[in-house]
Amino acid sequence: MDAELRCNRLTCRKTLIDKAVVVSIVVLSLIDCANELFNASRLCPACETSLTEPDDVVVCSLHPTNDYKTSVLSGLSPSLIMEICSRALSFWQYQIHQENSFQHAVIRNLNDKQAQLQKQLDNVIREANGEIDLLGNKVTELERDLELERRKVHELQDASR
Amino acid sequence: MDAELRCNRLTCRKTLIDKAVVVSIVVLSLIDCANELFNASRLCPACETSLTEPDDVVVCSLHPTNDYKTSVLSGLSPSLIMEICSRALSFWQYQIHQENSFQHAVIRNLNDKQAQLQKQLDNVIREANGEIDLLGNKVTELERDLELERRKVHELQDASR
Amino acid sequence: MDAELRCNRLTCRKTLIDKAVVVSIVVLSLIDCANELFNASRLCPACETSLTEPDDVVVCSLHPTNDYKTSVLSGLSPSLIMEICSRALSFWQYQIHQENSFQHAVIRNLNDKQAQLQKQLDNVIREANGEIDLLGNKVTELERDLELERRKVHELQDASR
Amino acid sequence: MDAELRCNRLTCRKTLIDKAVVVSIVVLSLIDCANELFNASRLCPACETSLTEPDDVVVCSLHPTNDYKTSVLSGLSPSLIMEICSRALSFWQYQIHQENSFQHAVIRNLNDKQAQLQKQLDNVIREANGEIDLLGNKVTELERDLELERRKVHELQDASR
Repeated sequence: MDAELRCNRLTCRKTLIDKAVVVSIVVLSLIDCANELFNASRLCPACETSLTEPDDVVVCSLHPTNDYKTSVLSGLSPSLIMEICSRALSFWQYQIHQENSFQHAVIRNLNDKQAQLQKQLDNVIREANGEIDLLGNKVTELERDLELERRKVHELQDASR
Repeated sequence: MDAELRCNRLTCRKTLIDKAVVVSIVVLSLIDCANELFNASRLCPACETSLTEPDDVVVCSLHPTNDYKTSVLSGLSPSLIMEICSRALSFWQYQIHQENSFQHAVIRNLNDKQAQLQKQLDNVIREANGEIDLLGNKVTELERDLELERRKVHELQDASR
Repeated sequence: MDAELRCNRLTCRKTLIDKAVVVSIVVLSLIDCANELFNASRLCPACETSLTEPDDVVVCSLHPTNDYKTSVLSGLSPSLIMEICSRALSFWQYQIHQENSFQHAVIRNLNDKQAQLQKQLDNVIREANGEIDLLGNKVTELERDLELERRKVHELQDASR
Repeated sequence: MDAELRCNRLTCRKTLIDKAVVVSIVVLSLIDCANELFNASRLCPACETSLTEPDDVVVCSLHPTNDYKTSVLSGLSPSLIMEICSRALSFWQYQIHQENSFQHAVIRNLNDKQAQLQKQLDNVIREANGEIDLLGNKVTELERDLELERRKVHELQDASR
């Protein structure tokens, strides 16, 4: 049931499978994206603050071992454990919130495109109908003219006979 | 940052503001929807199991008082507290997961509609072009016929003179 | 492993088994103690503030059903869940802290009693030794006096013969 | 309110202040005790299993930085966060439980010592009383004998006169 997190780089957005790079509020797919973004700068890709503390950029295993799960917070007091737990849930919620905002942006974008397409369709139909009407009128006019000329030909043939 | 939950009834989907009715894995906006669905049956709207236990249907305040927040789990052991906490987080994740699935269904639906609209546009353009070509050909044909008749008229007039 | 909580009333201190009465920061064994303390007053037994809110005094089941565990916090956001969870852990920690303080008071009390007993033992030994010495001296003195008198008897008997 | 943890080595039992060494279910004060116990063996001081995994022995900071608190579990799913949180609470509860058992052992020990001391006091009083009675009897006997001899002296003096 746990919703999967995606790489926060908009040009990537791959589902994070095994490991991830956590930078302040941003999560990135490992190597592929982190290396490209951090080659020299050590700036947060989201807010551009400089990342100087050792825990600012952390490689996080998404499937920690049982040993790690047992020992990582062992020795801490309940209030510290709950604080860390709350911070990690907030991070996860922020990611879910970002994902949700992204989905809503996609929906807005799709609705815009659809409205545009509908408008284009209406225009095409109106223009086509305009042109077809014009051509229809021309055909009617030409058929009338042709009928007149044919009548003239008949009259002239009758007169010459 | 907390994502808001929505009434799980598809015809409602209002954001839950103050109170909600929790039925097994389903959350419903109060009065508006719960009363309509539960007037006689007491069946879960999601899975149709019969709801017989007193805690099966619970009216939940989304903004509990400080007194309630302090006392609701007081006296329980840490392992029970964590179990209850995990169940409530799972419920919330399930809701987020449902919301996310709903968004994805909306996106799929919008993409289908857009493909349909694009196809309709292509059809309209093709059919209009076909009709315009037909009419264009007819105009060309009629103009040619008209020219021929006019020439005949000239020739007959020249001959009679 | 979960440490058991005890009724906070010092004259009771029974292990809480099934249900408990939670009053602000105090936990009480049901009926036995709560009824006696709350018959008229509705004052907190710990801090004497008046308990007026409905959630100020709560009967808490120490072994809630699965249905209750699932539904009690369902519908709440993760941050509310964590806040409630932290408050319940603080309550539990406060109880453990109280129990620990009680054990330390018992140990201090036992150490005081032992020091007193040791002092009493030392006093008894010193007084007994004093009395024994006194009596010993008296015996020595009496034996010397007796010896003198016996010698006098012998001398007088020898003189009279 | 957070109860402090103590070094689990019975000959140390110092309150853990800043850093601690966590070994499976055991927590140790840094350097002082860990180095002595682990110089060559890498066996758990509690259960003697061999500690081969990298996370089996962990140096844990009891006052982690905010950066660490934010990043240590970031990227993990709520269910993993709750699992880790529950494991850390269990560790803390185990420590509290151990501390509590230790306090109870201390109390049992003090009660035993007190009973022994009381018994010793009773014995001393009984033996002293026995000896005092004996000496008292001896004094009485000697005083009677002395009185008899003195009377003899008087009779002999009267007779010689």
